[in-house]
Amino acid sequence: MAFTPRTPRVVAARRLQRRRDRDATGRFLAEGPQAVREALARPEVVTELFGTPTALDRYAELAAAAARADVPVSEVTDEGLAALAETVAPQGLVAVCRHLDVPLEQALAGAPRLVAVLAEIRDPGNAGTVLRTADAAGAGAVVFAGEAVDPYNGKCVRASAGSLFHVDVVRAADPLETVEALRTAGLTVLATTGYGDSDLDDLADSGRLAEPTAWLFGSEAHGLPQELAAAADARVRVPLHGRAESLNLAAAAAVCLYASARAQR
Amino acid sequence: MAFTPRTPRVVAARRLQRRRDRDATGRFLAEGPQAVREALARPEVVTELFGTPTALDRYAELAAAAARADVPVSEVTDEGLAALAETVAPQGLVAVCRHLDVPLEQALAGAPRLVAVLAEIRDPGNAGTVLRTADAAGAGAVVFAGEAVDPYNGKCVRASAGSLFHVDVVRAADPLETVEALRTAGLTVLATTGYGDSDLDDLADSGRLAEPTAWLFGSEAHGLPQELAAAADARVRVPLHGRAESLNLAAAAAVCLYASARAQR
Repeated sequence: MAFTPRTPRVVAARRLQRRRDRDATGRFLAEGPQAVREALARPEVVTELFGTPTALDRYAELAAAAARADVPVSEVTDEGLAALAETVAPQGLVAVCRHLDVPLEQALAGAPRLVAVLAEIRDPGNAGTVLRTADAAGAGAVVFAGEAVDPYNGKCVRASAGSLFHVDVVRAADPLETVEALRTAGLTVLATTGYGDSDLDDLADSGRLAEPTAWLFGSEAHGLPQELAAAADARVRVPLHGRAESLNLAAAAAVCLYASARAQR
Repeated sequence: MAFTPRTPRVVAARRLQRRRDRDATGRFLAEGPQAVREALARPEVVTELFGTPTALDRYAELAAAAARADVPVSEVTDEGLAALAETVAPQGLVAVCRHLDVPLEQALAGAPRLVAVLAEIRDPGNAGTVLRTADAAGAGAVVFAGEAVDPYNGKCVRASAGSLFHVDVVRAADPLETVEALRTAGLTVLATTGYGDSDLDDLADSGRLAEPTAWLFGSEAHGLPQELAAAADARVRVPLHGRAESLNLAAAAAVCLYASARAQR
């Protein structure tokens, strides 16, 4: 019989919509077929899959993949699914996943040539979008540093469009220590700021972007903390050719990360 | 005496939150000091300014600029302002503005070297963000083509962060006719699509991006209509170096528009 919103396992999984319960259990929710597919591609990540009968039928290959990985698959009613999902038009599947962040040292041991650091970024949609863009640009690691949003926040997971499962995600309490560790690992650390003294185009012309690089991005509202910008090897501004006062975070990150990707080809 | 939510002029202005009333009156609302400042920088755009006593005091230079331009300035109560504003934390100012779009021919007469075309993009936040990014990259015109969102939608105005007042905004009913007109004006028309046969980096290497260029962007959910992509001079994909399946619209537009800006320097 399909689980309802009152079935204890649905009640328990639903609690993962709250950060407190995610932190306490080391679990989070991934919603929709795309995220579930990406999660199932990583062994040991998924602990449970919920789906409506319709969705489990429509995405039978995902249900089969879960079964092969010994992941319990449970049918839920439409109401049970609605209780687990945070979007208004859920596509019938929600997976319970284990946290998958790794220590910074482990991510750096892979010698990534491109790293994105989200410093004190509190907006989950912005953070997830930058994570997705960093993945597309070929970044090996994305660091959530300082008082950044929880990478397992539902909105962040959805905005990442599966990229949360593709790159090494790191949670680092201290942004300054992160900068030191990145530099020690041989990465050039570049701070993105509207008031930077280096123009991105000039930096690209200089050939310096071909080096292994870590980009620091601050929140849209407050920018990078000053001491963090000061600790970087350079403070870089994206040129503003028109009359806009600034770019939004996702656009600025896309321009910077793709400038690196192009230089590093 | 300050206007309240029931004052007829506040009631009339509030109706501009609805598209029907914007279309019927040729007016729209711009909210917050940044948008009001940009609007006032253009003669004839603002027809009325509402502000709380606190905001009119804090932004006295904007109230003065409005008065110099013979724009009526009206004090509203906090409740009156809340009725006019669409955000939860309005900063005390809302201006009634005239529609400012221009015909495509007029925009092309300015010989813009960079144009962004939003084809059938229905999400106002996405459209406003691309408008902002296009302005930053130096685009001279942004065309809302086909069944695109109303550029005067409040969410689009806010996401544009003032850029709605900086570039030539065009509303074009027929996207295919728009492509023809752009090409006739000497612009290379490039369609952004994940399935494009030209790689953005290769195109940049070829020097072709230095030409006057119009970029076509489609909706995040549906991409560009196929006949529109086919009508372009080339179909261009942003390279995906990692495992992300795609970029979101704002990120893809930023990468493409800035690739042109860099090539056109």
